[in-house]
Formats: sequence, C-alpha cells, structure tokens
Amino acid sequence: MGGDHGPPVTVAGAAIALDRLAGHDIKFQLHGDAAAIEAELGKHPRLRPLATVHHTDKVISGEEKAAQALRRGKGSSLWNALEAVKSRDADAAISGGNTGALVAISKLLLRMTSDSLERPALITTWPTQRGFTSVLDVGANLVSDAAQLVEFAIMGEAFYAAVNATPGQTVRVGLMNIGSEEQKGRDEVKEAHALLKDGGIDLDYYGFVEGDDIAKGTVEVIVTDGFTGNVALKTGEGLARFFVAELRQAMTASPLSMIGAFLAQGALRKLGARLEPPGGGPLLGLNGVVVKAHGGGAAHSFADALKIAADLAASDYAVKAAANMQRLATALDAPRAASGTTQ
Amino acid sequence: MGGDHGPPVTVAGAAIALDRLAGHDIKFQLHGDAAAIEAELGKHPRLRPLATVHHTDKVISGEEKAAQALRRGKGSSLWNALEAVKSRDADAAISGGNTGALVAISKLLLRMTSDSLERPALITTWPTQRGFTSVLDVGANLVSDAAQLVEFAIMGEAFYAAVNATPGQTVRVGLMNIGSEEQKGRDEVKEAHALLKDGGIDLDYYGFVEGDDIAKGTVEVIVTDGFTGNVALKTGEGLARFFVAELRQAMTASPLSMIGAFLAQGALRKLGARLEPPGGGPLLGLNGVVVKAHGGGAAHSFADALKIAADLAASDYAVKAAANMQRLATALDAPRAASGTTQ
Repeated sequence: MGGDHGPPVTVAGAAIALDRLAGHDIKFQLHGDAAAIEAELGKHPRLRPLATVHHTDKVISGEEKAAQALRRGKGSSLWNALEAVKSRDADAAISGGNTGALVAISKLLLRMTSDSLERPALITTWPTQRGFTSVLDVGANLVSDAAQLVEFAIMGEAFYAAVNATPGQTVRVGLMNIGSEEQKGRDEVKEAHALLKDGGIDLDYYGFVEGDDIAKGTVEVIVTDGFTGNVALKTGEGLARFFVAELRQAMTASPLSMIGAFLAQGALRKLGARLEPPGGGPLLGLNGVVVKAHGGGAAHSFADALKIAADLAASDYAVKAAANMQRLATALDAPRAASGTTQ
Repeated sequence: MGGDHGPPVTVAGAAIALDRLAGHDIKFQLHGDAAAIEAELGKHPRLRPLATVHHTDKVISGEEKAAQALRRGKGSSLWNALEAVKSRDADAAISGGNTGALVAISKLLLRMTSDSLERPALITTWPTQRGFTSVLDVGANLVSDAAQLVEFAIMGEAFYAAVNATPGQTVRVGLMNIGSEEQKGRDEVKEAHALLKDGGIDLDYYGFVEGDDIAKGTVEVIVTDGFTGNVALKTGEGLARFFVAELRQAMTASPLSMIGAFLAQGALRKLGARLEPPGGGPLLGLNGVVVKAHGGGAAHSFADALKIAADLAASDYAVKAAANMQRLATALDAPRAASGTTQ
C-alpha cells in the first residue's frame, strides 16, 4: 500500500521484477487492501499465480510519526509484512511507505543484530564515474562512536558484495573524513580508522576518503555517521535536481539551443537515466531483510527495490556480517584487556 | 605567491578587480618575490601606480603542514601579508596559498574574536535555483557545540549582508538538520535552534533546513559544524564535476548529439559558468579580514576573492557581528543564572 501511488506501482513493480529475478524462486505476499490489490493483479497474469494477497484495512500514512505508528500500527500492511519476516513466512519485506514507521516497527519486531546500534542503518547507492558507490548511514543514527562506524563498514561491505558487486569485483571500504591525513578528523573517526586498519576485521579497508570521493567512485563503500551521511545525500539530491533544471533552462534558452537539445535528446535522456538514484535501499543491522523503496518512484524503481531484497535474502550477507561482528567484538575487548581498563 | 600559478594569476587578478572595485579607494600590497611580481606588474599599467611590492624570498609551499608553517613561516609572503593586517597597514589579506597554513597563522597573528571558536570558520557560497546560499563552517571546526553554531549564524548573516546581498534583500539563516521537526536532530543542533529562536539574537532565523535546501536556495545562510559542512561541500564539488563529465560524454556520444552540442554550445557555456564556484571565501571569527582564494582558480576567480575582501573590509560586518555576539553571551548567561548552574 506504500509510496505515493500504492498498488498500481507496487504490483506493477512486482510484475517487472519477475524478469529481473529469473535466478530466484520467487513468491510475493501482498499486504493491504485486497480489492485494490486484486484489481491490479488482474492486469499481470504472469504474476498472479506467484502472489498471495493478505488483506488488511489498516494503513500507516506518510504523515504519521514513528512513535504513533509504533503504538497504533499493529495490523497495518507495513506491520503485517514485517511480522511475516519475523515468523519466517517471508524472506524479506519491501515497503515504499513511511520511512520513520518502517525503521521503528522493523526494530521492534526484528530487533537489531547488535546492541550498540541505535537503529537500523540506511544505505544508498550513488552512480559514480566508475560504477556505483554505496554510502551508509544516511540518516538513522545521529551520532556514531568508533564501534558503530566499524559496524557500518562491516554491514556495508557485506551488502555491496551481495547486491552491487560484479563477479570478482573487489569491495573496498572508505571512511569519510575531511582530509586524508591520519592525524586529522574527529576522534571517533580516527578510532574507527585504527580498528579497521589493525582490528583483524576481514574486509578491504581503503582508509580515509572525502566528500568528493563519492562521485569519483574511489571506493565501493563509504562509511559515515547518519547525520553527515544524510546531509551529504540530500545535498547531492538537491544538486542533481538543480543541475537538471539548469540544463533544461539552458537547452531551451534560444531557438538554436532548442534545436541542439532536440538533436541530442536521446543522449540527454540516457544521461537523465544514469543520474537517477536507485529504487531503494535496505535497512541494515536487523535480524531479517527489509528494503525501503522510494516513495515517489515508478514501477521500475519499485522493481529495483525488490531485486535488492531478493539478492540480499539469497546471499551470505548475514553469515558474513556476523563473522566480522565477532572479530570486531574481539578487537574491542583486546586493548581494554591490555590496558587493564574495565569499561 | 600563492595558488597553483603565483604572480601571473594574483597580479592579473588584481588588475581585473580594479574595474569591479570602482566604488572602493583601493591599493594593493603585493608580498613575495619582487622580480616575479614586477615582471607581471609591467603588463598592467593601470594597476602599477596602485601597487607596492614587499619583497620576501620565503614562500610556504602547498604541501607544508600547518604546524610546520607556524614554526617556520615567519617572514614568508603569507605571514607578511597577515602581519600587515595585524599592524593595520592593510585592511584585508587575500591568499590563494596553503589553507591550513593560512588558518593557523591568521589565528596566531590576528586572534579569534571569541574564545569559544577553535579556529576561523570557512564559508563558501553556492549558486542555487534562486540566487546564492552561503554555508559555514565548511572545514575548520570539526565539532561544534550550540554556542559555536550560533556564532556561525551571527558571522554568516553579517557576511552575507556585507558581501552577497542585493540592496534590501532579506538574509535568512537556516540551521542544518536531518529533518524539519523540532524534536529531531543532534542535541547541540536542538540547543542552537532554541538559542536562535528565543535568545534575542538580532537576525532573521528561518529554522531547520536539510541538505537539499542548499541547492533550492531556501535560505541565504546555512549553518552547520565544520565536519558536516566540509563533507557536504566536497560531495557537491564532486557531483558537479561528475555532472559536467557525464554531460560532455552524453553530448559527444553520437554524431547527432555532437551537432546538438555544437548548436547549444553558447547555452552550455553559460551553464558551466553558472555552476562554477565563487573565487574564494573569508575566514570568519578573526580580528581582521582574511580571504582564501581558490588555489587552482584563474585570474578572474582571484579577482572575485579580492572583491569579497574589499566588500567585507568596507562593511559594518565587524560591528554588527560583535553586537550579536554580545547578545549571545547574554543569552548563554541567562539560563545558567536562572537555574543556578555555574558552568
């Protein structure tokens, strides 16, 4: 029921995803208003036999606060989808709905894999000069200590390997800082750097990166706290919209440029598609796969989110992340034991 | 001597600035290698009588660390220019050189106007859908408490009014956050919000803004800590370069799009100029005007930095900022006195 458009987009997205999910043995549970969903399912005969409809009248609106959604959301389509993941009736939940509600209810029902995570981390993937770079956290954890930043690195790396990486691709992880020198940066960032370098975590750590390394594609995964990551993400989204608006204005400024734009329209359309953000991103750190699809996205964008969820659920993400989390716990214990500090 | 090109750009920049500074009674002190400077001055007969050359052999390189520059920089062109501001021989210093050295030596020689500022704040101005937005701090102060964020607001507002504002333009100040609701955000951001709303500071406070409000031009000044601001700035710079590279590639992808690009070249050139960042930004919070020019900029970019310095030096910036700093001090004392807390 989620997103700006509801079943016409989510059901059509599932139909589109069928082709992209050829390698997966996929079934869909559709939670929400049965009549609205059935009406859409009727338009997609290939999807129909793979889908079950789970009726509920209750929907969490986009405006509802997370705390309200927690109190009053039981039995809603969002809640029921997450319950299905909890009870292992489903391998993943995908929602285009209220992000705050999704984060809060996911955390309540599925619980975090680690006590030190305040909330599930949000990860988004950007197109870059070289391919794709995933950035986390982009908004859930406002303040992050060193251990949390390393947890983001572990989860981000495992996510990228499971979902974005081409076969054999190296997945390097960079830590966001405001300079590449070791002595620079916030304390927690320097501590996380030391842990990632020497803590025995099994991942390809690149070192510090800066904001412009996102678009450069210097590394595959960039780790930062949720405040900085959210500001960077929204700054980038705002700039992308600004560029497109400015380009449109430039190309319609004179008869000559309009002819130019007409001749170049195929190239410009491809450029637009290339700059489009991916259809969604997972909530990492939960006991279960949950993907947030863009609320304003079209059906093909919702299909992207379904693909991410299916790839993540079918991968060794959870096992790999858990093994590294264990290494982190060992690394965190070691210096304390050595220095005799009892935390 | 600073920047990637030295006197050929800085001297030519001064010559260009002459036209833009028609309203100012301007004179230039040129610090550095006299022979190199004189050779350039010879090319600009209108500039020559307005310039004095202050010779030194010593130059701080772009690679030198700030601490080294502090120890060994005395007598360098950068140091001498800042000494001239300290001794009031000059109203402003402009450098295209080593930013770390400029920040450190400025702080040593000119001192901060307020004890609570760790370092001078860096402010940059972005083109937006509506005009220009200035963002600070973009890199000097890694962690900022509420009082520091309010100081940034005070300095940023006074800067914008002095340098960027058109006559009669309202200068609104927004506080960077990751949501517009009052209960959201980091503690220091929420405290700064309360101070700006109810602390009696004399400026037009808008409230919380998010990353995409930079490009939207929602407000004229956006305040954030130096870590977040630096990441946002560099993310934006990286995206702008990415966008231009992608556009170039799209426009040369086929014969048709190449003809299109040829016809639209005037419009595309205008777009490029519009997206170009301004030539520099001041270091705020010092007892004196210091402007950092972009090291890689051309002469017209260096002229922009000179214009900023001249406008700032000729304005009531310092008086206005000092009055608001006093109001902030009063506001900070008030709740403590009321609650009986002694710092």
